[in-house]
Amino acid sequence: MTGHLLRTLPPSTAAMMAVFDDNSTIRHALAFEAALARAEAAAGQISDEDSKRIIEACSSLEVDATELAADAAHTGTLAIPLVARLRESLAQHQDAAAAVHNGATSQDLLDTVMMLQVRHAADVLRSDVQRINNGLASLVQSHAGTAAVGRTLLQNALPVTFGLRAAQWLAGVHKATNRFDRACAEEIVLQFGGAVGTFGGLAGRGQQVYEQMARELGLGAALAPWHARRDGVATLAASLGVLVGMIGKVARDVAFLSQNSIGEAFEPAASGRGGSSAMSHKRNPTGCQVALTAAARAPGFVASILAGLPQELERGLGGWQGEWPSMAELFMLAAGSAAAMAEVIEGLEVNDRAITRNLEASEIGTDTGEALRIAEAILAQYRQET
Amino acid sequence: MTGHLLRTLPPSTAAMMAVFDDNSTIRHALAFEAALARAEAAAGQISDEDSKRIIEACSSLEVDATELAADAAHTGTLAIPLVARLRESLAQHQDAAAAVHNGATSQDLLDTVMMLQVRHAADVLRSDVQRINNGLASLVQSHAGTAAVGRTLLQNALPVTFGLRAAQWLAGVHKATNRFDRACAEEIVLQFGGAVGTFGGLAGRGQQVYEQMARELGLGAALAPWHARRDGVATLAASLGVLVGMIGKVARDVAFLSQNSIGEAFEPAASGRGGSSAMSHKRNPTGCQVALTAAARAPGFVASILAGLPQELERGLGGWQGEWPSMAELFMLAAGSAAAMAEVIEGLEVNDRAITRNLEASEIGTDTGEALRIAEAILAQYRQET
Amino acid sequence: MTGHLLRTLPPSTAAMMAVFDDNSTIRHALAFEAALARAEAAAGQISDEDSKRIIEACSSLEVDATELAADAAHTGTLAIPLVARLRESLAQHQDAAAAVHNGATSQDLLDTVMMLQVRHAADVLRSDVQRINNGLASLVQSHAGTAAVGRTLLQNALPVTFGLRAAQWLAGVHKATNRFDRACAEEIVLQFGGAVGTFGGLAGRGQQVYEQMARELGLGAALAPWHARRDGVATLAASLGVLVGMIGKVARDVAFLSQNSIGEAFEPAASGRGGSSAMSHKRNPTGCQVALTAAARAPGFVASILAGLPQELERGLGGWQGEWPSMAELFMLAAGSAAAMAEVIEGLEVNDRAITRNLEASEIGTDTGEALRIAEAILAQYRQET
Amino acid sequence: MTGHLLRTLPPSTAAMMAVFDDNSTIRHALAFEAALARAEAAAGQISDEDSKRIIEACSSLEVDATELAADAAHTGTLAIPLVARLRESLAQHQDAAAAVHNGATSQDLLDTVMMLQVRHAADVLRSDVQRINNGLASLVQSHAGTAAVGRTLLQNALPVTFGLRAAQWLAGVHKATNRFDRACAEEIVLQFGGAVGTFGGLAGRGQQVYEQMARELGLGAALAPWHARRDGVATLAASLGVLVGMIGKVARDVAFLSQNSIGEAFEPAASGRGGSSAMSHKRNPTGCQVALTAAARAPGFVASILAGLPQELERGLGGWQGEWPSMAELFMLAAGSAAAMAEVIEGLEVNDRAITRNLEASEIGTDTGEALRIAEAILAQYRQET
Repeated sequence: MTGHLLRTLPPSTAAMMAVFDDNSTIRHALAFEAALARAEAAAGQISDEDSKRIIEACSSLEVDATELAADAAHTGTLAIPLVARLRESLAQHQDAAAAVHNGATSQDLLDTVMMLQVRHAADVLRSDVQRINNGLASLVQSHAGTAAVGRTLLQNALPVTFGLRAAQWLAGVHKATNRFDRACAEEIVLQFGGAVGTFGGLAGRGQQVYEQMARELGLGAALAPWHARRDGVATLAASLGVLVGMIGKVARDVAFLSQNSIGEAFEPAASGRGGSSAMSHKRNPTGCQVALTAAARAPGFVASILAGLPQELERGLGGWQGEWPSMAELFMLAAGSAAAMAEVIEGLEVNDRAITRNLEASEIGTDTGEALRIAEAILAQYRQET
Repeated sequence: MTGHLLRTLPPSTAAMMAVFDDNSTIRHALAFEAALARAEAAAGQISDEDSKRIIEACSSLEVDATELAADAAHTGTLAIPLVARLRESLAQHQDAAAAVHNGATSQDLLDTVMMLQVRHAADVLRSDVQRINNGLASLVQSHAGTAAVGRTLLQNALPVTFGLRAAQWLAGVHKATNRFDRACAEEIVLQFGGAVGTFGGLAGRGQQVYEQMARELGLGAALAPWHARRDGVATLAASLGVLVGMIGKVARDVAFLSQNSIGEAFEPAASGRGGSSAMSHKRNPTGCQVALTAAARAPGFVASILAGLPQELERGLGGWQGEWPSMAELFMLAAGSAAAMAEVIEGLEVNDRAITRNLEASEIGTDTGEALRIAEAILAQYRQET
Repeated sequence: MTGHLLRTLPPSTAAMMAVFDDNSTIRHALAFEAALARAEAAAGQISDEDSKRIIEACSSLEVDATELAADAAHTGTLAIPLVARLRESLAQHQDAAAAVHNGATSQDLLDTVMMLQVRHAADVLRSDVQRINNGLASLVQSHAGTAAVGRTLLQNALPVTFGLRAAQWLAGVHKATNRFDRACAEEIVLQFGGAVGTFGGLAGRGQQVYEQMARELGLGAALAPWHARRDGVATLAASLGVLVGMIGKVARDVAFLSQNSIGEAFEPAASGRGGSSAMSHKRNPTGCQVALTAAARAPGFVASILAGLPQELERGLGGWQGEWPSMAELFMLAAGSAAAMAEVIEGLEVNDRAITRNLEASEIGTDTGEALRIAEAILAQYRQET
Repeated sequence: MTGHLLRTLPPSTAAMMAVFDDNSTIRHALAFEAALARAEAAAGQISDEDSKRIIEACSSLEVDATELAADAAHTGTLAIPLVARLRESLAQHQDAAAAVHNGATSQDLLDTVMMLQVRHAADVLRSDVQRINNGLASLVQSHAGTAAVGRTLLQNALPVTFGLRAAQWLAGVHKATNRFDRACAEEIVLQFGGAVGTFGGLAGRGQQVYEQMARELGLGAALAPWHARRDGVATLAASLGVLVGMIGKVARDVAFLSQNSIGEAFEPAASGRGGSSAMSHKRNPTGCQVALTAAARAPGFVASILAGLPQELERGLGGWQGEWPSMAELFMLAAGSAAAMAEVIEGLEVNDRAITRNLEASEIGTDTGEALRIAEAILAQYRQET
């Protein structure tokens, strides 16, 4: 088994790893073939009987993931060996076997699997992000009036409130969440169009098949097949990159504030977490570490997807084929980051006494300007939008 | 002078280089100070007389850009030496001199200059992108029925139409344009908030000052100062990265189609363009080269902005300071790419005879499926949205 | 199980996936602890008896990788739960249990595991790269005199020989291999230094322990612990990035040459490979696709490791923690790329007739200049160095 | 003028900007043509008289950089308009005019200009890096015995010495310097080979011309023209990326140590540097800001060069064309970073009292293990190698 332990640096969540595991991939691929069969029967492209047999085969087929992976690596695409297995399972019904995957191309299946996983992954991610946002909203309220040293370029500057700091965290994560949600609403769409995106071989019923499949699979309908037009994937990836970065900003700050010489806020003391194998007195900002590591790794994935946009002609060579693992990595990083910071924020230990002591020691006065009003405005906006 | 010739690989446009040149930077910086003075007078924070003097000084100040650059490099920020010059020019009016930059911090000025330039740059960019989109729309119409070899993974696959190919180009660039426009509408906002983003020293009138400045400078108003919350900048950068990539996709295809062995489409034969210093018979896809080079360079800038999101506390050290040049580079790349491809698309020489000959030689038949309908749907959507 | 199927895009090799699988990780981690125990006994830091018991426990401990991964994710480091299991297995011998991991810190273990895997991965990779280089050397010889169209900026230019083209491929991959080998020779070093890299708690015997461990584990000895000094890891990563890119260059060219309209070279027709799920007539450059996808994904990993170099103080937060998975990804990409292109190059079908026909049709003459001499010089240099 | 002020974030140095300014570019381009003419005369490829006239024209030609840039942008290469100007200046001597650029291609000129600038840039950079290394060596000695809090994951851990910390900085920057020097020694090579890298049209004297040109221009001689083999450029870029990152590590630490709550080390108080436009009491780590900004921006340039390695065939489209500006940016970032940190390190104010006070307050004891020995070993190695 490859990579379970690798996934501990930074850790993802079990729920997110399940979204991209082999069973999920196979199940989604078979859902694509079943939806295709159903829609093609409805459009008169294959017989009802063949359709039913295919759908049944899709629901009962047992696939050995390791063998499938080896075959997929050899053929260069997951679709060919999966379709072969499906057809083999229908060997008794040669018409049905021949009707499998009718009018589809490998990339139709691959891209749709990716989109089904992205939709699922977005739901999984959203709940932890929501915990962060709610936790931050609570912090804004509970520390609205706590004057604190504001620090710029790592130096003491002028006073802020702890509530404003939390409000700025909230504003950043919330805005990034909104953009991510919008990207999901607009860019999670079915891929289907056949070999060159013309719905060839479907007697003019391609659009009808497309629309029914999209409905059945719960995916959006694109204006047209998008095999070599990857702006949607890139937009999803970028919105994730921004979200991971904004969660990372919260982590950066919490880690700074928990330095021994500052001591203004700490991750919750989870049993067995944040320890050191060498120093039992230490309390490491482990949740922040997870989020910061994710924020350091995410931009590379976004960049490689952006660099792949100039795909060749109707379906490219080598660009889109790398998007699926990159999207999976981005979501796994995001999930680990969000889960870790949800815990950190929900249990954040704010040391008001240290905050006050540091402010007094800094000799920068106590005038927090409009900190209170700004924090309230951010909070009100958040409340209104959720 | 540094970098004029460097900017020929890939070239930007004169109009875009002017947006980010030193005079523009200085002019925008002074516009910030003038708007600040006017708004603070309106809010009773400085006297009308001081405000007028400052505004006048901002309009008449002559700054040696090279000296200013040296001083900015030394002090670590453009604001300090610029404000010093402004104050010096008001030496006769010490109150006015003291009122300059009141309540503002260096980053307020820098970020606002960046945003003013981004707004201007977006306008400059948009006109060339529009030329591409309009040119593509014409190609969709004029080649709606031209059957052509569809190519996938660089191999002949099944027939498409040239019109569908152009429609897919259009769909990609147009969608990327829409997202870029939306990012501009939402993220080009004033930066102002003072040292730690609390409107300190403005007697509770900060928000009023902010809103008037935003109106006067023609910038959007953010919910709050965003010194350490850079999701908006990252979103702008990412939308540019996608746009440059989608223009690059058109370039990739045109370059492929103009290979001698394919010969289906060519860049217009501009006098003196596309030549070779060694081979006079060659006709290089020079416009495509520009766009592809831009698409190769853009992702790195986006990634570095994403990597900088975890800024420290109220205003960070080393992250946001690199965004301005990265945004400038992105716009200069985008402008060069858009201008080059506008020329390429407006003058694209499509060789129908070669297209037909290649299709016949390929022995893949002539069934273009629903290519015509899909192309028309894309075109109709484009017409409707513009 | 996460990611087996994800690893099919692009595929890695079974041998390389085994290098980074959980069993390997656990085995290497236990090897670290065993080597530490042996060296500390030799240096008089723990008793011989305790050392023997620890070494035995390391060789007999059974670890459930999934549980260990969950614990590692929770504690923020793999070392803590692994050391805990080791101590638990020694519960009968409390002195030995206490002596486990003596003087070491979590990062000592993690970095050393990474280095042991890198060393192993380099060996695995080298054999496929060697196949590429040998295959290219054969091509240089067998096509030394085959005049062919030289193409620049995707246009026909002047004649080359196929042998020169292959020689240039060889020169690129071979030079990149040499640099990678040098990086391995210099940068695969033991990590050990304790909590802050001072060999604390080892009574001045730290260096002695370090050197013996390095010998026993077959790793190089660094001048000093390098917890926050990651230039070696970055250098290894960059050398891999260059190697993957140069193999990608070969793939790019083969894919171009196998376009239907050129037809000068083809991947070997492996049974079941390169097929299309929609078009049975197609012969896709599947091996090239693997290498090009790897080349598109690799730079992002290198960039994220470079971006993490400014680690904080004695051991950083969030930078080095992401290196291990990034290095693993780089090696898995490299392995998949090298294995695919080894097959491609060893079985490359060069169509001399098409090469000649294309050259005649191009009307660029047949003068190949010093192509033959250059190709021979490259080949001679390669022969001499291997 | 574009970008002078942009170059203040982060600032480069005047010396490095001069390396890449237009005059330098033009001068190097003309040096290429002159060296070519001389070498071709020596090899009997052009007449001595033509050669002399060309060499003279190269030394006397006045070029308007702005016009040249516009023409280069239009033609897609700097070489064509420059060669045209050179020929025009020789209009009285048509044979000499015709002999200009004989046997060369545009990329020969461009790549050689880049290499000449890289060689020069490396010299400029080295002197500031040397200042850093020497400054660090002094710090190691002067603080060899100063016990200090060691900090890991941003938390107090166990004691180190300030000397060891400085020694680790030295080890990192010095090793990165060595690798950069080696890359320069091996990869700064002449580009020359003609249109397709075969020395076409030189009657078999290409290699002779190549070698003489390399000698005259002071560049290394590659085994063969490397138009589409960019591993050398990528290796140079990566070595710069590592160097910038390791200087950034020093900056990160100094910035941390100069936090008000720690106060162990400060940048020198340069007149007018590190101030704040809003808070006169602040002392910003401005030099560190420069180095950290450079370290954040550099990886994107390295990644885009790596992503461009799979160049097409004999000379590619869109990959190598972006390398020159990326290399220039990398050197300008490196120069700014090195100069800023040279100042910081040479004038670093170490507050021994604060170091001791922090250590006592931390209650982690005073055992610094083998810190002294390790620091001395690093210093000895450095002394030995320089």
